[in-house]
Amino acid sequence: MSIPLDINAYLEEKRALIEDWLAKAIPSENAPPSPIHQAMRYSLMARSKRIRPVLTLATTESLGGKVEEAIPFACALELIHTYSLIHDDLPAMDNDDFRRGRPSNHKVFGEAMAILAGDALLTHAFYLMSIPHSFESTVSSESTVESTVSPRLAVEIITEIARAAGTEGMIGGQVMDIRLEGQSATISQVEAMHHGKTGAMILAAIRIGGLVANVSGKQMESLTIFGRHIGLAFQIVDDILNVEGNPEKLGKSVGSDRTAKKSTFPSVLGLQESKACARSHYEQAVQALELFGERAQILRALAKFIICREF
Amino acid sequence: MSIPLDINAYLEEKRALIEDWLAKAIPSENAPPSPIHQAMRYSLMARSKRIRPVLTLATTESLGGKVEEAIPFACALELIHTYSLIHDDLPAMDNDDFRRGRPSNHKVFGEAMAILAGDALLTHAFYLMSIPHSFESTVSSESTVESTVSPRLAVEIITEIARAAGTEGMIGGQVMDIRLEGQSATISQVEAMHHGKTGAMILAAIRIGGLVANVSGKQMESLTIFGRHIGLAFQIVDDILNVEGNPEKLGKSVGSDRTAKKSTFPSVLGLQESKACARSHYEQAVQALELFGERAQILRALAKFIICREF
Repeated sequence: MSIPLDINAYLEEKRALIEDWLAKAIPSENAPPSPIHQAMRYSLMARSKRIRPVLTLATTESLGGKVEEAIPFACALELIHTYSLIHDDLPAMDNDDFRRGRPSNHKVFGEAMAILAGDALLTHAFYLMSIPHSFESTVSSESTVESTVSPRLAVEIITEIARAAGTEGMIGGQVMDIRLEGQSATISQVEAMHHGKTGAMILAAIRIGGLVANVSGKQMESLTIFGRHIGLAFQIVDDILNVEGNPEKLGKSVGSDRTAKKSTFPSVLGLQESKACARSHYEQAVQALELFGERAQILRALAKFIICREF
Repeated sequence: MSIPLDINAYLEEKRALIEDWLAKAIPSENAPPSPIHQAMRYSLMARSKRIRPVLTLATTESLGGKVEEAIPFACALELIHTYSLIHDDLPAMDNDDFRRGRPSNHKVFGEAMAILAGDALLTHAFYLMSIPHSFESTVSSESTVESTVSPRLAVEIITEIARAAGTEGMIGGQVMDIRLEGQSATISQVEAMHHGKTGAMILAAIRIGGLVANVSGKQMESLTIFGRHIGLAFQIVDDILNVEGNPEKLGKSVGSDRTAKKSTFPSVLGLQESKACARSHYEQAVQALELFGERAQILRALAKFIICREF
């Protein structure tokens, strides 16, 4: 394995690989019933850094696993992330008109189709994770997966992702977000919300990379600490960018948290303290990688990218 | 296996078993974040015949499989069915205020929570199907599953359910339903919509029962024909009940299809022709069971129940 020193080139290479796979993983726009496939592809294929799947591939690759084995799970994470954005943007939720640089899903396809497109992306994520490991794939000529994990590991990863996406994780964080709106929240409430809303899926992305690489229990503990801190750092930076980011680079509106009276790190701690907090989580994340030595070079670079990003 | 002659007693026994399992399969109402668990349980535990999971258990049991092995998959079908009802009832979709004998989910918990409760039920369905078959369950003392299928069969069933619930199946049918609203549809369009909207999940319920019972290819072909016809018969009866059913027994409003200008069997064929059509699908369904002889007695009785039901 060659270790690239240029993290932007690495990100670009992995993003292209993931997008190739995503484009093939969803029925074409013309496949009936076509409006739903159009709506799914519209949000899935929009501009994105693909941070979650990149984290999975980078973790697997760094620790000696096979990228081909991790790809279906990595892409499933992106489908689940995309569904959550579509549903979050709905008028009954955050009512956001703009996402990933273009009008949000319901503004283009209507609310009913946006609800169904989100449902379909979530459903299809589990299809993508199970199909390569079921009997069927051995006789299917359409299968693009050359190498797969064992069915036992596949169900273990499906369990991990379903838990991270459910009420213990992402949906739980979303519920806390709704409940804290307009309230004066404490920092530990905001942290718990972020742990769920963003942290759980980022942690899962990293742990899945470790599962595919068949890491030891001790290594998984370190990856879990890394994942928790980097997930929090990611969301704190997101909160900060919602205050002082560039909407063109971000592809979404800024200032919306304040307008919606959201509880965020900057609203509770202020901007400077929030930046220090993100930095501290970054440092703790990187410390957890010590066990892996040189092998974690890409993960360190990704952590730095997450903390320094402008979009 | 004792074959009960009283189908109502059989249905009641299986319904009770399924509801016991459902009640344990979802976090308690008090588990944080509690509003989402309340919303999930509100719709999941409401009055229901549990037709889909009963079909899975009956198929497995009739063909020599173990009910304990089928239970997680049967219950997952019910979670997915419940999520689809919650999302269908939303104002942006069918805008129904009444379901399973009480106000629909969004009328009680608000639209945002209803969207999330649907998302969470769908996500949790896949968790329920994977958790008993992943490494974890071997060390978990909480596991209530005594007997499980192999991980390979588990992923095969997850694939089957994800396909039936996705754009090729249930969601696809829902999209057609939206597109046909107010249009003058042909009977083959209505049939295709029903195949997706209701038929795919009923077919999956039966096929999963067969998979757990490890039936032969030829037997699976017969189950598939049975499932397709009984799925269509079920939805045609549903359409008929929406015209002439008793709202108290049904637990939902009648006449709503007509008000919403839905394309249904009665709206295209008229009531009498629709009844004849349901009868014909019932007969074709029962014919497909010939291969199984006496062993399919319960499935025949269930088919008759589906065609003769008043709610």
